[in-house]
Amino acid sequence: MAINKTEVRRILDQVKAAGRTSLTAPEGKLVCDAYGIAVPKEGVATSAAEAARIATSMGFPVVLKIVSPEILHKTEAGGVLVGIKNAGEAEKGFATIMANAAKYNAKATLLGVQVQQMLAGGQEVIIGAVTDPAFGKLVAFGLGGILVEVLKDITFRLAPASRDDALSMLDGIAAAEILKGVRGADPVDRDALAAMIANVSQLVSEFPEIVEMDLNPVFATKSGAIAADVRIVVDFAPVTPRYRPSQETIVRQMNRIMKPDAVAVIGASTEEGKIGNSVMKNLINGGYQGAIYPINPTAGEIMGKKAYKSVKDVPGEIDVAVFAIPAKFCAQALVEVGEKKIPGAVLIPSGFAETGNMAGQEELVAIARKYDVRLMGPNIYGFYYTWKNLCATFCTAYDVKGHAALSSQSGGIGMAIIGFSRSAKMGVSAIVGLGNKSDIDEDDLLTFFEQDDNTQIIAQHCEDLKDGRSFAEVAKRVSKKKPIVMLKAGRTTLGARAASSHTGALAGNDKIYEDVLKQSGVIRARSLRDLLEFARGIPVLPTPRGENVIIITGAGGSGVLLSDACVDNKLSLMTMPPDLDAAFRKFIPPFGAAGNPVDITGGEPPKTYQNTIRLGLEDPRIHALILGYWHTIVTPPMVFAKLLVEVVEEMKAKGIEKPIVASLAGDVQVEEAAEYLYQHGIPAYAYSTEIPVAVLGAKYQWARGAGLI
Amino acid sequence: MAINKTEVRRILDQVKAAGRTSLTAPEGKLVCDAYGIAVPKEGVATSAAEAARIATSMGFPVVLKIVSPEILHKTEAGGVLVGIKNAGEAEKGFATIMANAAKYNAKATLLGVQVQQMLAGGQEVIIGAVTDPAFGKLVAFGLGGILVEVLKDITFRLAPASRDDALSMLDGIAAAEILKGVRGADPVDRDALAAMIANVSQLVSEFPEIVEMDLNPVFATKSGAIAADVRIVVDFAPVTPRYRPSQETIVRQMNRIMKPDAVAVIGASTEEGKIGNSVMKNLINGGYQGAIYPINPTAGEIMGKKAYKSVKDVPGEIDVAVFAIPAKFCAQALVEVGEKKIPGAVLIPSGFAETGNMAGQEELVAIARKYDVRLMGPNIYGFYYTWKNLCATFCTAYDVKGHAALSSQSGGIGMAIIGFSRSAKMGVSAIVGLGNKSDIDEDDLLTFFEQDDNTQIIAQHCEDLKDGRSFAEVAKRVSKKKPIVMLKAGRTTLGARAASSHTGALAGNDKIYEDVLKQSGVIRARSLRDLLEFARGIPVLPTPRGENVIIITGAGGSGVLLSDACVDNKLSLMTMPPDLDAAFRKFIPPFGAAGNPVDITGGEPPKTYQNTIRLGLEDPRIHALILGYWHTIVTPPMVFAKLLVEVVEEMKAKGIEKPIVASLAGDVQVEEAAEYLYQHGIPAYAYSTEIPVAVLGAKYQWARGAGLI
Repeated sequence: MAINKTEVRRILDQVKAAGRTSLTAPEGKLVCDAYGIAVPKEGVATSAAEAARIATSMGFPVVLKIVSPEILHKTEAGGVLVGIKNAGEAEKGFATIMANAAKYNAKATLLGVQVQQMLAGGQEVIIGAVTDPAFGKLVAFGLGGILVEVLKDITFRLAPASRDDALSMLDGIAAAEILKGVRGADPVDRDALAAMIANVSQLVSEFPEIVEMDLNPVFATKSGAIAADVRIVVDFAPVTPRYRPSQETIVRQMNRIMKPDAVAVIGASTEEGKIGNSVMKNLINGGYQGAIYPINPTAGEIMGKKAYKSVKDVPGEIDVAVFAIPAKFCAQALVEVGEKKIPGAVLIPSGFAETGNMAGQEELVAIARKYDVRLMGPNIYGFYYTWKNLCATFCTAYDVKGHAALSSQSGGIGMAIIGFSRSAKMGVSAIVGLGNKSDIDEDDLLTFFEQDDNTQIIAQHCEDLKDGRSFAEVAKRVSKKKPIVMLKAGRTTLGARAASSHTGALAGNDKIYEDVLKQSGVIRARSLRDLLEFARGIPVLPTPRGENVIIITGAGGSGVLLSDACVDNKLSLMTMPPDLDAAFRKFIPPFGAAGNPVDITGGEPPKTYQNTIRLGLEDPRIHALILGYWHTIVTPPMVFAKLLVEVVEEMKAKGIEKPIVASLAGDVQVEEAAEYLYQHGIPAYAYSTEIPVAVLGAKYQWARGAGLI
Repeated sequence: MAINKTEVRRILDQVKAAGRTSLTAPEGKLVCDAYGIAVPKEGVATSAAEAARIATSMGFPVVLKIVSPEILHKTEAGGVLVGIKNAGEAEKGFATIMANAAKYNAKATLLGVQVQQMLAGGQEVIIGAVTDPAFGKLVAFGLGGILVEVLKDITFRLAPASRDDALSMLDGIAAAEILKGVRGADPVDRDALAAMIANVSQLVSEFPEIVEMDLNPVFATKSGAIAADVRIVVDFAPVTPRYRPSQETIVRQMNRIMKPDAVAVIGASTEEGKIGNSVMKNLINGGYQGAIYPINPTAGEIMGKKAYKSVKDVPGEIDVAVFAIPAKFCAQALVEVGEKKIPGAVLIPSGFAETGNMAGQEELVAIARKYDVRLMGPNIYGFYYTWKNLCATFCTAYDVKGHAALSSQSGGIGMAIIGFSRSAKMGVSAIVGLGNKSDIDEDDLLTFFEQDDNTQIIAQHCEDLKDGRSFAEVAKRVSKKKPIVMLKAGRTTLGARAASSHTGALAGNDKIYEDVLKQSGVIRARSLRDLLEFARGIPVLPTPRGENVIIITGAGGSGVLLSDACVDNKLSLMTMPPDLDAAFRKFIPPFGAAGNPVDITGGEPPKTYQNTIRLGLEDPRIHALILGYWHTIVTPPMVFAKLLVEVVEEMKAKGIEKPIVASLAGDVQVEEAAEYLYQHGIPAYAYSTEIPVAVLGAKYQWARGAGLI
């Protein structure tokens, strides 16, 4: 069905002219018609023959209703007949209704009889659209009645939604099975529902003034879907467009900011304990090799570097200016940064939006826009870029190079990232504080890290997304290349309240975040530890080439817990083919259990681990291994760890690489073994069956989203 | 309504005599009548006046149906009238139906008209009963239709269920809100539903031959509940009673086994690497002060101890015999243990049920019963009881005394417990391997630890409960005194399959475990780490005296994540009264956020933490504190840790003790601070906001279940 945008424009103009904020039911139906959204057919008949003709054209059964401005209570007037089954009944019904109406009110003007398609039951569903402050237009789908109201069983996608998005929504609710037909009911027409969802999403995208739309209920049958009731709310107030520089501009500016050749420290100081002193120390002691320009109105030299009164006095080019001065001096300094054409300002100072000083923050943003300067912060710890030995921060220095790029909205979480990274010997490419996010936010970082060869995974903590729409678009692209993990704080109502007292950000409905992050290929971490462990483990693991996971375990008890964890993390334990089962059985004691988990039993020598792991790696039908090690005197922890690394190296030499994770059950020596394994590319955890499987599950989630398996 | 057991006995006898396995519908109704379970009322009228009388007595509306052996298609014969609203209609209806029937088939014998109570809609629910292999009789409740079928929204309780249990079931389903009336519907009659649940549970408990019962649907209205359809399945096969020694017997025997004065090691050896050698070493080097009797057919002396050929040769009494001999020699040795009247045997050897050798295991159990010996294992690592310096195991020795008693069904998980305990410096009272659980199982341990003064918390890993009914009964009693935490492996279908290949145990429906554990006051751990962290943290925390939790945080970002975790762990963040809010505000910067979380902001000196924490402890309206520490130069980690301990000690001196947990965000120095805090009674975690809150949540869950708050 062709879309008729002109008709919708006409109706909306008429609503706007009338100063209304919602459409009447007939207007709503016309809008639906214009976008191929099925509503009950209807027409007005002025004769019995016409009633029969109209009814026949729309199909039976139909409902007949008197049309008369004077008759408000149609049923009372005998003006309604339902379940009209054929043309004869329609003709007769017309006459009956007209006669009843005339009898009820002799003075009434009888305009005719409305013939309306009667909806023949089916499954009640709800299709709607909302406008979210962060994500903009979203289309929603749920089951009608109590399921949506009580169980909140509803799912969202960014609008416009593709047909595939729409189909995924039908499977995206808990009660999805109902749509397939239960208790003898017919399955619904999935294509018709998907088309309706897609059309609604296209409509609200093409007419942004439609801020809310509800088709409730929609009757979905085996041969179609019809929206029985339409509600459309509009808002004609102009929307301020977001600042969205082009990808190319972001990359150009962010590359200079994140990988600068020259850094200015505004407020550099010799005084111990001052932020401007800590930043200088971190830059110098961190081993940064670029130019460092201390900016200080009084000092001639700071830590052996010539100081300048203003960035404008510095002879050469500057790529980024780190601010270590009180809030009140920032605006003036930023003007100078702009005049010096420095592309980025790292605003460590607090005292802006987070303390209620909105105006101060807005002033900075205005200056930044004027001079095309990008702002990081304010109210941040700064940032690290290890491959440049750059610690542009007042916190402790960090220099373990690696491939995980992390960011946090909050300073406290940033410190936890640094502590964990150091403790777990996790190499990072960058750690970035985003704080108040007056300008640079998560999607700018994604755009930078996307093309940063030192970064293989991006892990972000955030409390809100100021421009969720842009984030989702960028994430959808970037996640195809590099895994993105997000810890979204403020998931719960209480958490969201705390978030809002913290940054003044309105936390959105968590289900919207859940669905949109998934739609964008983002892996969602449920806890801080998960964020950190995923950032550490995912880049270490090779990408799986298929869904067949096997567990090889020395401890049957671990096997059970690892199986539970596979289900929790949506991993599919391979059904063991008989030949493979027999091959494993050759290596394990007769009372060991083959199948999957492969239970090699507890008292086995290194050889048994070796043989079974080698087989698991060699057989091309197996795509990933989960190992359950049990500490015994026969195969001590480091013996296990070393044999495992040997087998992996041996296979790598043959071109075989598969993701392997390990759960180590044993005395404290397993901690050393876990560390050794991690250093050799095998995420391994002592005293936990759940964490290694969660890490593998996250890797799989990414690989699936990126279309790699 | 009085219960009529005689009537049910009569009907069941009749079913048994007929060799049937289920009841007919009329039999089912009679059973329901006998237990006060409302079913639709009905009666047969032979006159119009009688029809009116019967209908009036049961209440309108009613349904009228012709009763005639010759008329099968009643509706076709005009023999059914629904919605009869009053006595007049009933009289008239009787006449109409009789006339219609006579016209339809002049030869038919018209026995009269059945008058049946017409169910007037309401909410469809399901009430049922099942017989679980581990838990025995269970009563079930769910919403009718798709909610149970598709969403599996159903809840179970052990039968018989008290009225309180039954009421808790109405709130125990996800869609509980529906019962309260949504979309203008009436709320259901909760008392009527609870009574029906309780009656069903009483019925199946009193007549164990009823193995399954379904009331589906039950129509619940605002003024009652009626079961429209009844299905009862019976099994008259006799059930073998479980071995259930009395509590007193268990305590007497377990005290000798767990805290022995004399231990025999059957298979003690001087040969390095042998299990019998490891056990001897662990006993002696572990510092056990009781008598140790090595049993070995050849050696005269082992590790300086006189060896005997048989336990029967030992002069004194022996409390426990540790078996370190191959499976095939166990039966004979056990007979000697029995003859020596040793109350317990610790069966380390494998080679029994776990390898398919059921007969061998059954033989041991038979000997044990004959001589009244309790068996631990077989197929275990042994056990530790630290307060006796007893390491009756072939694994590494462990001697850090504490108050957590842990057990595991699997050896691998046992080793993980030991490793974690050592690594986390967690003191334990005991660690016990249960393995094949041929005899001693979780409820024996509960009964022992209940009266063991050295134990304050019991944490158990299990894959199945062989006698879940007994466990639940004991746990219900013990959990009132001491927290019980359980990690139930095999939660998922895949996990359960692995469990079944591992121990031959049939894993039950996880929802049954979920509900029964909850009903018994058991805290369920979701992961191995949770089990271990709960075991470590719960005994350290004082018991809260109320539900008011507050968060005091230096990092706003931690505050948000901690709030999320509070919701996840069912903790209620106190709504801050204005005077308390004002009191906190005095101590924090003007831009800090009071309310809850109390955000003291990041750059604050030790004094701010001190003042706010002291206030939180002093104000009697606050019952628990969650602290979010942010590492800064102004308040370094150990400064924070020490000031916190000081404030806690100061309050303790005043008689104030409240549970406090802490999340530490910062560089690696926070790890030392976390350890220091833990040692001083404050569970504290680096780089995690979720674990400290989960530990507090578990403590709360216990305190609520035990009726302490």
